[in-house]
This record gives sequence, structure tokens and C-alpha cells, in this order.
Amino acid sequence: MAFKSPKGTRDFYPNLMRVQNHIFSIWKNTCKAFGYEEYEGPVFEQLELYTQKSGEEIVEQLYCFKDKGGRDLALRPELTPSLARMVNLKAPELKFPLRWFAVPRLYRYERAQKGRLREFYQLNMDIIGCTSLTAEADLISAVIEMLCAFGLNDKDFAVGLSSRRLIREFLAAQIPEDKIGQVYRVLDKRGKITEDLFNKMLTDLSISQGAIESINSFLNATTLSELKQMQCGGLLDDAVTELEELFNTLERVGYTGYLQLDLSIIRGLDYYTGVVFEVFDRNKSLRAIAGGGRYDNLLANLGGKQLSGVGFGIGDVVLYELLKEKGLLPEKIYGPDYFIVTFGDVDADLLSFARALRGRGKKVLYPLESVKVKKQMSQAVESGADKVIFFGSDKAPAGHFEVKNLETREQAIVAFDDL
Amino acid sequence: MAFKSPKGTRDFYPNLMRVQNHIFSIWKNTCKAFGYEEYEGPVFEQLELYTQKSGEEIVEQLYCFKDKGGRDLALRPELTPSLARMVNLKAPELKFPLRWFAVPRLYRYERAQKGRLREFYQLNMDIIGCTSLTAEADLISAVIEMLCAFGLNDKDFAVGLSSRRLIREFLAAQIPEDKIGQVYRVLDKRGKITEDLFNKMLTDLSISQGAIESINSFLNATTLSELKQMQCGGLLDDAVTELEELFNTLERVGYTGYLQLDLSIIRGLDYYTGVVFEVFDRNKSLRAIAGGGRYDNLLANLGGKQLSGVGFGIGDVVLYELLKEKGLLPEKIYGPDYFIVTFGDVDADLLSFARALRGRGKKVLYPLESVKVKKQMSQAVESGADKVIFFGSDKAPAGHFEVKNLETREQAIVAFDDL
Repeated sequence: MAFKSPKGTRDFYPNLMRVQNHIFSIWKNTCKAFGYEEYEGPVFEQLELYTQKSGEEIVEQLYCFKDKGGRDLALRPELTPSLARMVNLKAPELKFPLRWFAVPRLYRYERAQKGRLREFYQLNMDIIGCTSLTAEADLISAVIEMLCAFGLNDKDFAVGLSSRRLIREFLAAQIPEDKIGQVYRVLDKRGKITEDLFNKMLTDLSISQGAIESINSFLNATTLSELKQMQCGGLLDDAVTELEELFNTLERVGYTGYLQLDLSIIRGLDYYTGVVFEVFDRNKSLRAIAGGGRYDNLLANLGGKQLSGVGFGIGDVVLYELLKEKGLLPEKIYGPDYFIVTFGDVDADLLSFARALRGRGKKVLYPLESVKVKKQMSQAVESGADKVIFFGSDKAPAGHFEVKNLETREQAIVAFDDL
Repeated sequence: MAFKSPKGTRDFYPNLMRVQNHIFSIWKNTCKAFGYEEYEGPVFEQLELYTQKSGEEIVEQLYCFKDKGGRDLALRPELTPSLARMVNLKAPELKFPLRWFAVPRLYRYERAQKGRLREFYQLNMDIIGCTSLTAEADLISAVIEMLCAFGLNDKDFAVGLSSRRLIREFLAAQIPEDKIGQVYRVLDKRGKITEDLFNKMLTDLSISQGAIESINSFLNATTLSELKQMQCGGLLDDAVTELEELFNTLERVGYTGYLQLDLSIIRGLDYYTGVVFEVFDRNKSLRAIAGGGRYDNLLANLGGKQLSGVGFGIGDVVLYELLKEKGLLPEKIYGPDYFIVTFGDVDADLLSFARALRGRGKKVLYPLESVKVKKQMSQAVESGADKVIFFGSDKAPAGHFEVKNLETREQAIVAFDDL
């Protein structure tokens, strides 16, 4: 009987791990280019951290368990509650605003399908303690620059901007207060169901025909001027102005082609309060690539001070699918600098020579068993090594070595100090 | 109410994460210098993967749970079973010997104490499919070089070499076959209990006084020549020769000062069959820093082919304690290249300027809100930035910027292209 990996998880063999490291490396380099500092939390947290504020869907998908001390724990389905917890614990010592990033592994018990796994990685970038829209602008700039660093451009993806605040204020003007929560959940399903079903679900909540029409034309708005015409007696002025300012800033920085208004974006998580955004592929053949927004009350709701946060997450699974579709996954194998092929035994002399080369900062591989030179050469090629050194070759004078470049096939006699 | 992290886990705030990244970076660079390829498995596995072969102690400490599909799963307490599983699944496509490394997060429900946590990181290096002692030599070289790269030397740590095979063959010559398993467990406790208790535990297993004396002098042997005198009618010849060859190779490569014979090293895991080793601090004030050995049957026992493996793990917790004790934790903060201090508003002009600098490969931070220059300067210092650029300063001509080096305090006017 051969054991398999649990459903919805992945085995990263070295060839897949190289791709994964490519993704991690572009994620982290972008964060550093924007001056964000890395942090990390535990993989499991107290169950209550999620049941309080994360929203229904996520709680249904939790991997929860009791430890041997009887504590109720859950594998983290997202990192933001851990971030809020950590900031709350050290708020007096921290200097705000914080710009932090992390690359957590996350866990959701979902139906495994294309672009969706039960165990996945996600880059999180967050700003805590800044109410200015510069925070949103900074994060949206970062996600665009990051995707461009993968080789994608505005023909491949776009950032849809929306506002929970605007939607909330619009709904408050249309429907009774006590219906808003239920209507949110229907709105969040809109992209995945037919228009008829959507309207029916609202009708079932006793929303009037007029309000349903109004909701539909609001959600279909693609320009800010449409929104302005729709204004309900000035009630939405501030929320529209906020979106307008954000668009203006990002356009002036040069991201016009990447941006669009998309009020159908709600985001599943309950804690968002302001601007929300999602990144999606232009073909819309995949789920959202990234998503985030502003959360004004999460830290206070988890027992901390009133500190506003903005952040986004970008998962590895959908991104991988998109990069694969566009032919943007890396192909070159970065192997060691040298593979030492020996004409003699694999012995202490060979290991000492390898040690001396490593002492010069080189990455060095050698055969572990005495096998024929031909087999050593094929091991060298498979390893992705740049060059082969022939150890014990009589073609080279003392202190010199015969070296072959595996790409150009050129051979040369090189002094040790020049290796 | 403020949420805390679960007992035995850590919150890596940016200052701690920097230290952690220093550890990861030296681990990974050493693996690459030795030509090992990175892999990774899931954080949880089928419970049975561990209950079969990992050994009693580890199974008692498992975090196990059922997922929503009723599957029995466990958070991984070690990576070797996952490695064996992965290799078994793809054995026909893989080219042996494999030299693989990984940096998993691992989970053991232990009493939290100095050097021991419930959630920790561990570097694993393994060679699969090589029966030659060069595998042991390669791995022991790697662990020594890695610790030296942290700034440690042979006054700080040593590698104790032992052999399960030798111990097993020695015990087989001294005591009845059916007692060997129980005696192993007593042997594994030896370092942590008094000599009297150790002897009593063996007496309780009906081991004769003569055999107990013989076991003690065997375990106390510190040289190979002592062992050779002790030989039981040549039964141990091969196992002693194996250890002797390994010592010889490693000494000839230059590691003499780091090595010692230590037959009290048993290793808790059941699957080891050959040479085993542990790295410990010379003061013996901490638990083992690293440990590993050869496992001949693990892959076959988990349903695969007969492929011999050798590997070791080095955890982050004890290593951190040791580096701290020796003053070897990194102190310098690597911040962004530039912090932009603005005399005007934080607006699209500032963001565009930052974008242009990032386009030149620079790491760039700016204030998120319009605050006084003095406050911006202190943000710049806290960020660890190398230099400050004064944006909107009238001291610099068009296309030029006033730059201050925060370390040397020097100021200069620099053209954009030279930033």
C-alpha cells in the first residue's frame, strides 16, 4: 500500500518547488521594494479568533480540533485575524502606521477544484494605523507591480475597485436596516448565479421590485459619473468622492489601463468597511487572483484599540494557473556552479576538493558513489550544473583543472584560483 | 479580552522574523552549496503514516484530528515519513541518489520549555538511494559547515557519532533477542537519568549484572580502539570498521576537532538502522542541536522499494538559544534603500517618484500621511533605510535630489540617474 498526500494538498517535488520559489521570490521582492516588513504567526489559533469575525463561509470551512490539553483550535483559514491579534498584543510598543507582509500557508476545507485547494499559500500585505487613502493606493500599486514582475500586463489582468461603505450607504437608502446583512450575502453570490435567480433571492427577502431594479443598475455602474447621477439626495457623496480620489491618484501614477469600477465586488469576509478590490484575469476564466480592502473595526472587535487596517491577499493556486496559461512559468533550472566528475574513487580527496571550492563561495556537487564517467556526466547534466570539473584528469598540470561548460560545450584548463 | 497565540507557538513580529530569516538563509545557502534540491510536503498527513513507523514517543505527541470528511489526519511531527511517501510515489521517475532538503514547520504536543516548543521549524537534509558512507560524510560535512556559517566553531559544538547497527549487534551478543526493544528505550533515557536508576531499569528487565556492566563500558567507550578490544568474537567487526571509515574520511577532509565517538546516542526514532549522529553544544547546557542517521527500511516499510536513506534534522529553537548565548544573532536591520521625506503633500507626484525609483530596482519607502518633516525623519530612521531623499526640496536643481546618508550623516545633491 502506497500512502498518498491528503486530498486538496500538494507534494512539492523539486521541479514544482522551483516554480513555487519563483512565486515566493517575486512576492517577497515586491514587498521589499515597497518597504514592507515580514512577519508570521502560528499555523493554528484559538477557534474563537475566527468564529467571532471572519464570516459564515470561512467558519464552515474550518479545520478545527482539540489539542491534548482540551483547547479548541483551528488551522488558520486566513491571516488577518492573527495579524489583528498580534498588533493588539503589542500595540503600545509598535510605531504606526505598520506596513507588514507575510506568506502564510492557509487551510480551508473546500471542494477541491481548479484554482482551489484545501492547503495553499497566500501573500498578505497590510497597512495598520493609517486612515489615508494613500494606504489603498500603496497596496494596489504593489499588487499591480508584483503581477507585472511575473510578466503579466494590463491585457492579462485588471483591478476592480468597489466600496463596502458605498454599497452599505446605498443599501441603507433603499432597504430596511435589518435586511442589509442578508442582502449582502445575496450580492456576494451575484457573479456565480443567473440574473433571474439573483432577483428571485432578493424578492424572497421581501425587497421591493423598485429597489431590486435600483440595486441592479447600481451594481452595473461602470463609471463614477453614472454613480453620481444615481445619488440618493447626496447620501453617497463622501463614499463616491473617496473612490474618485483613489482612481485619480492611481491614474496619475500611471495605472489607468489596470483599473475599473466594479461594484459587484463585495468580498466574502465580514470585516471589510471601506474600499474593497479584487484582481481578476481579463478572460474571467479563473477565480479572483487577489482581493482585499479596508477594515476599520477588526482590531477593536478582537479586543484592541480602534486602528484602521487595509490589506490584500494573493494566493498561489490561481496565480499558478494564470502564469501557466500565459506561458510565464520559469523553465531554467538553477543548478550548482560545478559538478565534479572524478576519474578515481569518491574519497576524502574529492570531498576536500569540494570543500575548498565551497570555501570560495561555489555551489558544488559530486557523485556519491564511484560510477563510470559517462554516468557521472549524465548526473551532472540532470543536476543543472553550469560546469563540470574533471578531477584527477592527467590533462591538467598541478594546481590546474580541466573544466567543461555544459551549455557552450567549451573545455578549458583553469587554475584553482580562477575556478 | 485580548487573544494570545496558542501555548508553545510563537508570534514572529518583524524583529524576530529578521532573525528567523537569517537562520533560514544560512540553512538554505548551505544546502545549495552542497547541491541539494528543495522540496516540501503538506503540513498534515494521514495519521497512519506516523503510527506505523515513527516510534512511541512521537505518536504520543501527535496533534491528530478528523477532517470534515471523517479522515484521520495528524499535523506532521517530523518530515521523514512524508519524504519516504513522496519518494515511494514517484520512485520510477526519480533519478537516484536524491539529495533533497526542506524547511518544514513541525508540530509536537510536548511540555513547552527552553529549547522545545510545540510548533517549530526544522531544516531536513536527506540522501535517498545511496548505500555508500559518502552519504553520511556529505551530510555531516554539511551540518558542520552550516554551523560554522553562523559563526560557531569547534569550541562551541561537536558531532557525536554512534551506530545503531553496532549497538544492535552488541546487544544481540549480550541479552536475549526479545528484550532488545525495551533495552533500547532505557538506553535512550541514559543521558537524562542517574547511573543508579539506569542500572535499576535494566535489572528490572532481568538483564544480568554482567551484561549491565558490559553495556555500561560499551556505552562509555570514547575511542574506536577501546571498542576493538571489546569485540565479542568478531561479531562487531563490520560495524566498527564502518564507523572507523567514516571517522577517517571526515578527519582527512579537515573536521577532526568537531568529531567524537558517543555510543550513548541512540536517537528516539525507531527507523534508524546504521550510523546515527547528534550535534550538541560543548557545554551540554542545551538539548541536541541536530540529529540524524541512516534508515535502511523506512521506504520499504511504507510500501515502497528497498531504498536506503540517510538524513538529519536541525531545529530552529535550540539553534536560536545557542546563537543568542554566543552573541551571534544578527543585529543590523536591512531596511529600504531610500526613505522619501516630502516637504509637500503625500500625493500622486510622490507615489510616481517612488514608482520610478522602484523601476530602477530600488527599495523605497515614503510616509503614508502628510506629517511634519521631523516625524518623517524619525520614521526613516526606524525603518532602517540607508538614505533619505528630500522630495520637493528647493536646494536641488531640476532633475536632482538632496540625499542624506543616515549612517554617515553626509548630504549630497544627486541626479536622478545616479540614485
